[in-house]
Amino acid sequence: MPRIAIIGTGLIGASIGLRMRERSAIKDLEIAGSDSSSGHLKSAQKIGAIDTAMRSPREAVENASLVVLATPILSMRRLMTEIAPALMSGAIVTDTGSTKAEIMTWAKSELPRTVSFIGGHPMAGKTESGPAFADASLFEDASWAIVPTANASEGSLKTIRDLVETMGATPMFMDAEEHDAYVAAISHLPLMLSTALFAMVHESEAWPELSQLAAGGFKDTTRLTGTEPNVAFDIAITNRAQIVHWLERYREALRELQDRLSDTDGEEEFFRYMAEANWDYTGYRAGNIGRQEVDQKMGPIPRTEIANLFMGEALASKMRDLTAASDARLEELERKARLTRRE
Amino acid sequence: MPRIAIIGTGLIGASIGLRMRERSAIKDLEIAGSDSSSGHLKSAQKIGAIDTAMRSPREAVENASLVVLATPILSMRRLMTEIAPALMSGAIVTDTGSTKAEIMTWAKSELPRTVSFIGGHPMAGKTESGPAFADASLFEDASWAIVPTANASEGSLKTIRDLVETMGATPMFMDAEEHDAYVAAISHLPLMLSTALFAMVHESEAWPELSQLAAGGFKDTTRLTGTEPNVAFDIAITNRAQIVHWLERYREALRELQDRLSDTDGEEEFFRYMAEANWDYTGYRAGNIGRQEVDQKMGPIPRTEIANLFMGEALASKMRDLTAASDARLEELERKARLTRRE
Repeated sequence: MPRIAIIGTGLIGASIGLRMRERSAIKDLEIAGSDSSSGHLKSAQKIGAIDTAMRSPREAVENASLVVLATPILSMRRLMTEIAPALMSGAIVTDTGSTKAEIMTWAKSELPRTVSFIGGHPMAGKTESGPAFADASLFEDASWAIVPTANASEGSLKTIRDLVETMGATPMFMDAEEHDAYVAAISHLPLMLSTALFAMVHESEAWPELSQLAAGGFKDTTRLTGTEPNVAFDIAITNRAQIVHWLERYREALRELQDRLSDTDGEEEFFRYMAEANWDYTGYRAGNIGRQEVDQKMGPIPRTEIANLFMGEALASKMRDLTAASDARLEELERKARLTRRE
Repeated sequence: MPRIAIIGTGLIGASIGLRMRERSAIKDLEIAGSDSSSGHLKSAQKIGAIDTAMRSPREAVENASLVVLATPILSMRRLMTEIAPALMSGAIVTDTGSTKAEIMTWAKSELPRTVSFIGGHPMAGKTESGPAFADASLFEDASWAIVPTANASEGSLKTIRDLVETMGATPMFMDAEEHDAYVAAISHLPLMLSTALFAMVHESEAWPELSQLAAGGFKDTTRLTGTEPNVAFDIAITNRAQIVHWLERYREALRELQDRLSDTDGEEEFFRYMAEANWDYTGYRAGNIGRQEVDQKMGPIPRTEIANLFMGEALASKMRDLTAASDARLEELERKARLTRRE
């Protein structure tokens, strides 16, 4: 009976198990699970995310042709050392950690040469954690980063690609350094910004009033503060240099925004900055992503005629409204600036 | 027939009209609307947010006992000047602008002394704009800031309080300076941070890859970039000093976070910072807000025994898990630090 082992049956591990159970084409598949929390393990079995619950990860990986490590990052090295002797020759091991460089190094030093390690990172999740929130459709339409080792075989790559596609996700191949730089910008930096914003506002003496006034905007911007501290900490520690790099750049960007806002003679420039960000964001949320979006880039506050060529009518119409409103406002600001200069 | 006038029938104005129509106890109420966009005006009438559509705001406010200004902030001064001669003696005028100090000054200089102006700010909204997204339940359970003028009569205050309660919202009375300082922290600063984050990441050469990898965390943290540029700009320009103040503080907070993260000997401290923010955030999202929440504040990473006294069982149990996980991790980090010192 073919066996897959899932080590770590929290939100991610249990969601993988559920989807596997629902969609895998493998006949007589057995999903073995292990978790350091016996509560998580029992609950994962109860919801059908795993068939067999095992206390020891070593037992779980025995005879498994595919092993998925879905624990917090900093437990992975010890875990690899522990399971190494029990791994079947030819087994394929992957993980779901949010950083990759350190994990790839550990895989190289801890796992036997008879197994193939291929790093993975599903770009999906929830702030809630634990198998109680597991969801077979969690990864649908998400990207899933795949980081192969240099010696990964064709077969092992195909297995991981199949896994990702079974999850409903789209594989994106990249190396560990690229991965860590990318996710620092779009995931780890937002996590830090969100936490710093919440912590600062919460510390304010006016927090009683602030918390009563705060609405959806504050809640969305600070939502990532709800990330489990163990998960957030492991991410930060294993991607420190990249996060620090982006924090530096962001503080510089904020400094520039502050200068623009403070410059009472530069209101046109400030408006242009806000309008351009909004324009780009509208396109992004309408699904213009990747190379396609960049090919369509038409300079700051692009012309609507060009926009029409590339977009659906609803989006094009929204973009036309935005551009018209922006143009009207810019004209007004320019007129005001001319009057001020004349005075 | 008693008349209420809504000037500006976008998302907010039309939502007020819809709710009024649905819930107001006033007999034979007529809701007159006006908007500089004839499209918005027609669509507001079509969905039943207003009874009468009028091209000129001056016509709309004639014979109105209550006037609601729901336009972008920077149009309000001109609007006040325009409607002033047509306002009925004894009329009550309010607004829905996101900043208050400038608007209160304009009301004082532009409106006749025979009317009462009381500033208002519903703490609810959507990124989408326009009457097409109007919703009678938009303000349910939201806070609604009320900023009275010094000479506001008891009767006019009662009218505005009734309006807010008809909307399903909770009135919060404060002065204009308090209001602008508060919303700078929980609304305008997040708007700036969100825009700066999106603009910076979007500018990156790796945007094609970044936009494909980006998941819910990035989308939530940057969501406010979707705020209409005219609205965002008016907010920024009329609350410049407060926003700059909070930007300064936030950049300082980020600098500290970056230092904490960079300090490889201070991992305990960094963990403590992340865990405390998460603990506080969990309580906040569970509905512990205002004075109540502050009274329960129990120092960094509070003890679960105390937590149990104040919280529902589900939250207390989550808090116990969080605390246990945090304690375990802190012990591990302390052990590691002791070992490092011995080496």
